Amino acid sequence: MKARQAVPQSPGAAPGPEPTTGPLTFEELQLAARNRGMPLEALRYDLTPTGLHHLLVHFDIPWIDRAAWRLRVGGNVRNQLVLGLDELRRRPRRTLAVTFECAGNGRARLSPRPISQPWLNEAVSTAEWTGTPLVGLLEEAGLGPETVELVFTGADHGVEKGYEHDYGRSLSVAEATRADVLLAYEMNGRLLEPQHGFPLRLLIPGWYGMTHVKWLSRIDAVTAPFDGYQQRVAYLYRRDAADPGEPVTRMQPRALLLPPGFPDFLTRQRTVDAGAVLVRGRAWSGYGAIARVEFGVDGQWVDASLDPPAGPFAWRAWSAPWDPRPGHHVLSCRATDATGRCQPTEAPWNVQGMGNNLVQEVEVTVR
Amino acid sequence: MKARQAVPQSPGAAPGPEPTTGPLTFEELQLAARNRGMPLEALRYDLTPTGLHHLLVHFDIPWIDRAAWRLRVGGNVRNQLVLGLDELRRRPRRTLAVTFECAGNGRARLSPRPISQPWLNEAVSTAEWTGTPLVGLLEEAGLGPETVELVFTGADHGVEKGYEHDYGRSLSVAEATRADVLLAYEMNGRLLEPQHGFPLRLLIPGWYGMTHVKWLSRIDAVTAPFDGYQQRVAYLYRRDAADPGEPVTRMQPRALLLPPGFPDFLTRQRTVDAGAVLVRGRAWSGYGAIARVEFGVDGQWVDASLDPPAGPFAWRAWSAPWDPRPGHHVLSCRATDATGRCQPTEAPWNVQGMGNNLVQEVEVTVR
Repeated sequence: MKARQAVPQSPGAAPGPEPTTGPLTFEELQLAARNRGMPLEALRYDLTPTGLHHLLVHFDIPWIDRAAWRLRVGGNVRNQLVLGLDELRRRPRRTLAVTFECAGNGRARLSPRPISQPWLNEAVSTAEWTGTPLVGLLEEAGLGPETVELVFTGADHGVEKGYEHDYGRSLSVAEATRADVLLAYEMNGRLLEPQHGFPLRLLIPGWYGMTHVKWLSRIDAVTAPFDGYQQRVAYLYRRDAADPGEPVTRMQPRALLLPPGFPDFLTRQRTVDAGAVLVRGRAWSGYGAIARVEFGVDGQWVDASLDPPAGPFAWRAWSAPWDPRPGHHVLSCRATDATGRCQPTEAPWNVQGMGNNLVQEVEVTVR
Repeated sequence: MKARQAVPQSPGAAPGPEPTTGPLTFEELQLAARNRGMPLEALRYDLTPTGLHHLLVHFDIPWIDRAAWRLRVGGNVRNQLVLGLDELRRRPRRTLAVTFECAGNGRARLSPRPISQPWLNEAVSTAEWTGTPLVGLLEEAGLGPETVELVFTGADHGVEKGYEHDYGRSLSVAEATRADVLLAYEMNGRLLEPQHGFPLRLLIPGWYGMTHVKWLSRIDAVTAPFDGYQQRVAYLYRRDAADPGEPVTRMQPRALLLPPGFPDFLTRQRTVDAGAVLVRGRAWSGYGAIARVEFGVDGQWVDASLDPPAGPFAWRAWSAPWDPRPGHHVLSCRATDATGRCQPTEAPWNVQGMGNNLVQEVEVTVR
């Protein structure tokens, strides 16, 4: 593993730009042109079509030769394992519909705005993932008793704030051995497309996307907490530069609505014809089941109807009738989960712009 | 058809912002978060995986009920046709590998910068499209002798610069009856995903993407040139506001290279290890076969090797050996097609930022 190996920086390069209230930077544009949100009209699908699934790739999508690729399970284990894709596909198989979002979703709605991938609201999707439960592999490998974490390393390689590394993340033994944690090789019934981690990715239902390590190449049992960049530097909730921070883990609750009417190409402002409509959307939380969704019109909130849950890890559909009156309106929605967590009406600021589940606002003109 | 039907605008709304030398606007960010480029490392694939194909959607991706959907062929024809998807799939079938790019590719590299989807270089892809040749349908419909154009109307609806319309484009009879013009219902061997035009899109090999009308619902033979917004206002090469402009049609030649080495997450600056590498890329033109690709290092150009053509309408692979020396370098490439058209080293400015095939530049640091 190459975590924390320094790479020569361009002269004058800084660890990273400070959050800003200024306009968008060229770096943010480059990231937005590579990464991709889910257009919000795709909230209509129970399962997001593969090509509409959001995507955040830190470095380049790596080239993986299927025939040569192997997953290696090692470190503090009794039996090292080396498995090809076909061997993994012959193991016990489980399919789960899982909603996940990028931990940075909402970042560009913060002020000052942390400089990174500038998500607004659209970095969320749901797919049906098929793979083999990780716990079975770990049992076969036999974790040594001193094991404290499992480290998951992908084949994607690059530099972030001066650290050259293969992308890697860790999980506690307790999280990693949950029955629903998958080594996933299919998405929506087909082998993974390259950008989603072909041939294998990790999937921890309920957690933000950075945990679902793509292009998985190694799993290592370690006896001290992993200190890789993506674990100990990125993906922290930090109030300021002096704050050591708290790890980003599970998804905060969020509801989104499918914008009604039709858009203007450039401004995305929407026009809605007068007449009763059923406003629909989805809601999810990594901490517990969705217990309540409220739908707001110009700051007046009503309870939305919840569809039956689609599964323990998939977003929940909701709807609310609305009788639009001519004029300009602001529509919004907010979710509350079974633990009582609720979306805020002021953005929860932190240095890296993580977990901003500020309520969505959709402006419409009714004619 | 609803082309040119005015929609009430928000008070004070202008037809559109002027080109700017200023920073990126919120409207451009919103568009970049919805639309999607092809990450340039995907230049390695002969056929772009479906979920990596670039995408430009003017309005919303519409919901189409497969059972209820029909293609209607009408206007100045002897026999009106109404066909469902299954009927179209029973007609003669043809599969073509087709490269196309968004006409606005390169727009954000112009100065001043027209305000619209802010593409850099990445709005291009190649897929294998399967459908039925349009000409057979037109023969069955029987075009009236006064027909001058065919109008293709999609199910996507919205407003652009004050014009409310269903997206629509036209073609001359001569272009529309080319043997390689398809009504495509499959992409890469599967039914279209919603964002690529399910259940049916038009495909005119060699032309920019705006022509390949998605979610096709009507084809009308007309006896006067179509005056819809997307034909007569958008997609023109105009030198200034007074210029009536020339229509945007076929793709200008362009070559792109697969950036070598590995990136920094934020800046996308690349690090390459010293030692000989083979730089690879793709080139295409809508005007003729690719005749030459040059590879440039710090302004010194050499001829690249061309792979055999992959078909009349697919990009052509090229490669060039490079022996990188430590330090900072700028890599570039440029294509020339069989008609002698070549990429410029100064951006060809126009009001709407169309067809900017300025040569790509990739900055790398060799260590």
